[in-house]
Amino acid sequence: MVGIGVVGYGYWGPNLVRNFADTAGARVIAVSDLREERLAQLQARYPAVRTTTDYRDIMSDPAVDAIVIATPVSTHFDLALKALQAGKHVFVEKPLVAEVEQGLRLRDEAARRQRTLMVDHTFVYTSAVRKIKEIVGEGLLGPIYYYDSVRINLGLYQRDINVLWDLAVHDLAIMDYILDARPSAVSAIGVAHVGDREDIAYLTCLFEHNTVAHVHVSWLAPVKVRRTLIGGAQQMIVYDDVEPSEKVKVYDRGVTYGAGSNGNRSNGNYEFLVGYRTGDMWAPKLGTSEALHDGAKHFVECIQRGERPITDGEAGLRVVNILEAAGQSLALQGRPIELNWERVAA
Amino acid sequence: MVGIGVVGYGYWGPNLVRNFADTAGARVIAVSDLREERLAQLQARYPAVRTTTDYRDIMSDPAVDAIVIATPVSTHFDLALKALQAGKHVFVEKPLVAEVEQGLRLRDEAARRQRTLMVDHTFVYTSAVRKIKEIVGEGLLGPIYYYDSVRINLGLYQRDINVLWDLAVHDLAIMDYILDARPSAVSAIGVAHVGDREDIAYLTCLFEHNTVAHVHVSWLAPVKVRRTLIGGAQQMIVYDDVEPSEKVKVYDRGVTYGAGSNGNRSNGNYEFLVGYRTGDMWAPKLGTSEALHDGAKHFVECIQRGERPITDGEAGLRVVNILEAAGQSLALQGRPIELNWERVAA
Amino acid sequence: MVGIGVVGYGYWGPNLVRNFADTAGARVIAVSDLREERLAQLQARYPAVRTTTDYRDIMSDPAVDAIVIATPVSTHFDLALKALQAGKHVFVEKPLVAEVEQGLRLRDEAARRQRTLMVDHTFVYTSAVRKIKEIVGEGLLGPIYYYDSVRINLGLYQRDINVLWDLAVHDLAIMDYILDARPSAVSAIGVAHVGDREDIAYLTCLFEHNTVAHVHVSWLAPVKVRRTLIGGAQQMIVYDDVEPSEKVKVYDRGVTYGAGSNGNRSNGNYEFLVGYRTGDMWAPKLGTSEALHDGAKHFVECIQRGERPITDGEAGLRVVNILEAAGQSLALQGRPIELNWERVAA
Amino acid sequence: MVGIGVVGYGYWGPNLVRNFADTAGARVIAVSDLREERLAQLQARYPAVRTTTDYRDIMSDPAVDAIVIATPVSTHFDLALKALQAGKHVFVEKPLVAEVEQGLRLRDEAARRQRTLMVDHTFVYTSAVRKIKEIVGEGLLGPIYYYDSVRINLGLYQRDINVLWDLAVHDLAIMDYILDARPSAVSAIGVAHVGDREDIAYLTCLFEHNTVAHVHVSWLAPVKVRRTLIGGAQQMIVYDDVEPSEKVKVYDRGVTYGAGSNGNRSNGNYEFLVGYRTGDMWAPKLGTSEALHDGAKHFVECIQRGERPITDGEAGLRVVNILEAAGQSLALQGRPIELNWERVAA
Repeated sequence: MVGIGVVGYGYWGPNLVRNFADTAGARVIAVSDLREERLAQLQARYPAVRTTTDYRDIMSDPAVDAIVIATPVSTHFDLALKALQAGKHVFVEKPLVAEVEQGLRLRDEAARRQRTLMVDHTFVYTSAVRKIKEIVGEGLLGPIYYYDSVRINLGLYQRDINVLWDLAVHDLAIMDYILDARPSAVSAIGVAHVGDREDIAYLTCLFEHNTVAHVHVSWLAPVKVRRTLIGGAQQMIVYDDVEPSEKVKVYDRGVTYGAGSNGNRSNGNYEFLVGYRTGDMWAPKLGTSEALHDGAKHFVECIQRGERPITDGEAGLRVVNILEAAGQSLALQGRPIELNWERVAA
Repeated sequence: MVGIGVVGYGYWGPNLVRNFADTAGARVIAVSDLREERLAQLQARYPAVRTTTDYRDIMSDPAVDAIVIATPVSTHFDLALKALQAGKHVFVEKPLVAEVEQGLRLRDEAARRQRTLMVDHTFVYTSAVRKIKEIVGEGLLGPIYYYDSVRINLGLYQRDINVLWDLAVHDLAIMDYILDARPSAVSAIGVAHVGDREDIAYLTCLFEHNTVAHVHVSWLAPVKVRRTLIGGAQQMIVYDDVEPSEKVKVYDRGVTYGAGSNGNRSNGNYEFLVGYRTGDMWAPKLGTSEALHDGAKHFVECIQRGERPITDGEAGLRVVNILEAAGQSLALQGRPIELNWERVAA
Repeated sequence: MVGIGVVGYGYWGPNLVRNFADTAGARVIAVSDLREERLAQLQARYPAVRTTTDYRDIMSDPAVDAIVIATPVSTHFDLALKALQAGKHVFVEKPLVAEVEQGLRLRDEAARRQRTLMVDHTFVYTSAVRKIKEIVGEGLLGPIYYYDSVRINLGLYQRDINVLWDLAVHDLAIMDYILDARPSAVSAIGVAHVGDREDIAYLTCLFEHNTVAHVHVSWLAPVKVRRTLIGGAQQMIVYDDVEPSEKVKVYDRGVTYGAGSNGNRSNGNYEFLVGYRTGDMWAPKLGTSEALHDGAKHFVECIQRGERPITDGEAGLRVVNILEAAGQSLALQGRPIELNWERVAA
Repeated sequence: MVGIGVVGYGYWGPNLVRNFADTAGARVIAVSDLREERLAQLQARYPAVRTTTDYRDIMSDPAVDAIVIATPVSTHFDLALKALQAGKHVFVEKPLVAEVEQGLRLRDEAARRQRTLMVDHTFVYTSAVRKIKEIVGEGLLGPIYYYDSVRINLGLYQRDINVLWDLAVHDLAIMDYILDARPSAVSAIGVAHVGDREDIAYLTCLFEHNTVAHVHVSWLAPVKVRRTLIGGAQQMIVYDDVEPSEKVKVYDRGVTYGAGSNGNRSNGNYEFLVGYRTGDMWAPKLGTSEALHDGAKHFVECIQRGERPITDGEAGLRVVNILEAAGQSLALQGRPIELNWERVAA
């Protein structure tokens, strides 16, 4: 039985407690939060769980094997490091940390102490993204042309991070999992309308072989959109997470390009040999389990088996590496920043 | 009666001929195209219209008062200039020209000869965009935060231009009309997958007062999307041109920001005073006339009354000014390019 | 403080317990179910609630002021009657009872003992239906032409009732609330494909003044549809409960009929003077509270204030009166059955 | 070359002329209409076509081989009979005639004179319905449980027929083609709100083996809906004709029923053995040709080859047989009417 301690019982904390409580092989031992009223709410629902306003009580609790960190991003590094140093396994809300340097230290600390370090890239554990990974992995799309995502809604403004760190992180995590490729450069443009952090931003990643990824995130949209297009030379996927069913649709569509078609510009023939192929559309059946439940289960199993999580410290670090560079580009109004991957290499 | 001559009877030509034929006060006199078979098709439908494979026959035809140019972009300048020099009024398909320099010369030539020069920024004449202009003009949105547009589908690839010049031009024209503001800088990123011109591109315009505009265009999407969000401090618009009805929706939604809310970071209070306001949604009734019909009518009336079209040479030039700078940014992988507006000032 | 006892902890029971537990002025005292494992699940979540497999323990518990009945329909009457006889207030899942006779006895028993009897017509407590009631009540639709509802999905098959008693009951309850009129006749057609009870059915109610109501219910549809159209002479409502937002849309649309327009049939003029009016569409903001929460609160307040619930025994009886007649029509393949309203009059 | 004469140039006439003009092997010779202004419009578009206000000119024209009848329904019989008697092939707008007796006479006349008689059941020639026919024909759905269609919008009111004869006729034609089965009884309920003919109606057909078909038609709906569900024991189809693409979706979904599951009511086990199966969804690629074009082509080919059209007089007669019985049911407020199929047997 893996004893779980949770630090932070704010917006996401209740979901974490509920899912770890439902995970076979795990038991929620204790929860800390600075706000007494939050702990009272927890107590009403989970009378058996210990509560404290001092996270150190949890770090030092011998019944706690693993620490779940659900606090503001700026505190992730400090708390995770202390937890690892206390010999605990660590599960951190996304994004892993606020700086690459912090991520490197966490990763190394976890490796040295042989502790499991996992970042909660939740979408990686959804049945939709796993199905897409499977389809892309089987090569059904052909060479990937683009990943394009729109992730917008009204709010929820975060206090200590901008909209890229809040929302684009999901797409970077999904891309990291599905594309299995590292962008060579990133460009980001954003503006702040309410408050002083960017609440609308556009992020572009450039990959080898002309693959492009683009993410539009906003806290200022009147409607909620969660739509990702992944286009390949053979087939294309539309993943709409707002759809109650048929979230993933695979279109047998593409463009073909005839040989020599572009050479005859001078003869007044305005047509050229581009062909459009449209075939069937197919929406695979998806599982119905909750992503966070599967993520919690994965974390517990990795601890038990001594295995490395899919979204381990490395994965968290790769995402933060892009976000950090995106921040530099943001300050330069979109000037592309080359990504340094050696720096984060194991 | 304004005699109309049409140069180019390709993809868009039939729509132009049909609409000018239906316009009171106008008569289609002659049409030229390099392809005999296209002219034969025209003849079958419009036996009274003269046809020729040499556009010069049209330019020199005294019965022709105005020339409609519907040829590839690379030929716009040359044809439009000749038409003006022949004393004709000119209606040019979008984009007006391929370079700012060309646009300046056309504008000046038209001014000097007192001829009407109009660019076919078709969307400006749709009932949806006119309604949006009206709503924005009345100040219902409050200060504009952003314009965000997605204009993607499978094809149609153009031979002599990339996807920005084919599709983003629509959004730049709409923005020019609705926002009535000139961006200070533009950034564009694009890739070419099929053929050697960009078939996917992202364009961002930065304005004063933190207004941002972003356009995503693609010839490589499995589904057709035509969705524009325009967000203001008070209300927000979703304009979905694919919807058969209710194309324009106005949301009474916004985010408010409390005074002093951001100052208390140290006290462990993770909430801060951002408020979300959601009210009614409203979809104004739209007219049902065809945009091209209203555009053709506007052109004819401007000629008759000696008035300046809404989408005159200046408007066409402003759009080309942005597209030209976007091309420079494209070559620099998104590096922002400052826009020079003095250069195109009248 | 109103002490609540719940009989039946099956599909809907957990929602009832959760909502009554959250209702100010109420406290969940005890829950009964025949299945020990269900009670164990309850206990894990609500350790303070007493559990029993014998509902009589609850009926005789002096701490229990009101009984919530969430058992199969066939048992409603017997349990509700016993609860009233034990001096308890009663809240019964929809439909109130399986026969009109039963409903009459419950109503009379509640009246005689001055106990609150409420049926859980949940949709009446949704913000969508309350808003529609408000709009209709203000006369914005004009005279009502029709109520048309589609309520279909895959499953959930009920053991002891057919699809009319499971799903059409919702529409009859909504109609009873919104239209405030009693149909003169009902016709119903249904078929049973899986099992021996109708799993697809169509029910039509005819009212005075030519108003018609129609309900399509099914457990055998591949997609979930919850769409109701309410058309009046002036405006029309589309209520789509599957929509995440903008569930209620009000269309300023209608058909007008010119005087004398139908008289000129002989003169070969195939047009006649029907006019179509299309104006704006408007989606009012809706509240976000959970319907069951508001229903539970209403029940508790009615007990406290000695008031009559909106969905009292009378309302439950009116709905059962239609369902019972619909059953007769069903057996006669749709033959219309006149409704007897005197029988259920107070 | 088949010479075509068209009687009636109203709402649908222009589509007929355009499509027959585009059909290889056919030539539009002459068109009649009572209204001179309609003929003038035709003349402007098709200067080579003869026009007349007297349809007898067309009937007696030896260059005319086939007559297309696009006049109000009440005149179909008389005109079609005269055309057949004049030795012409006949293509009649739906519905074929206003009474079964008329249909019998037309069918017999056509047979006796060996002329081709075709009714324009347009939807039968759409790529969507043909694909559905193919899927059903291959047995992919398993035994058919139901056909359910909603066909509603605002207008267009017809002068001489009610909404069943205007809109439900489409569904009866589609069912006749796809299901290849004859209903045993029909029930219909309708009301008239604007004018004196039913503008909202519900029609139900009962078939052998418990198959049920239901059609909701209305001229009084604020939105346009064209959605048909066809459910079988194995798979289910959703056919949404308003969708711009993916009009036909095939869902691998169903309900299974366990043996003996319903016997254990007494043991307090409220679950019973109904299982829900949900698999992939699939949207087959559809052709893009215009239905009327394919229908016109089919008519001309049947004349040339002496073959019988898919929608021949028999098909038209079967549909009218149901509509006529539906009219009787309508007068009896939905009382089911048994269908007499011997009467229309060849």
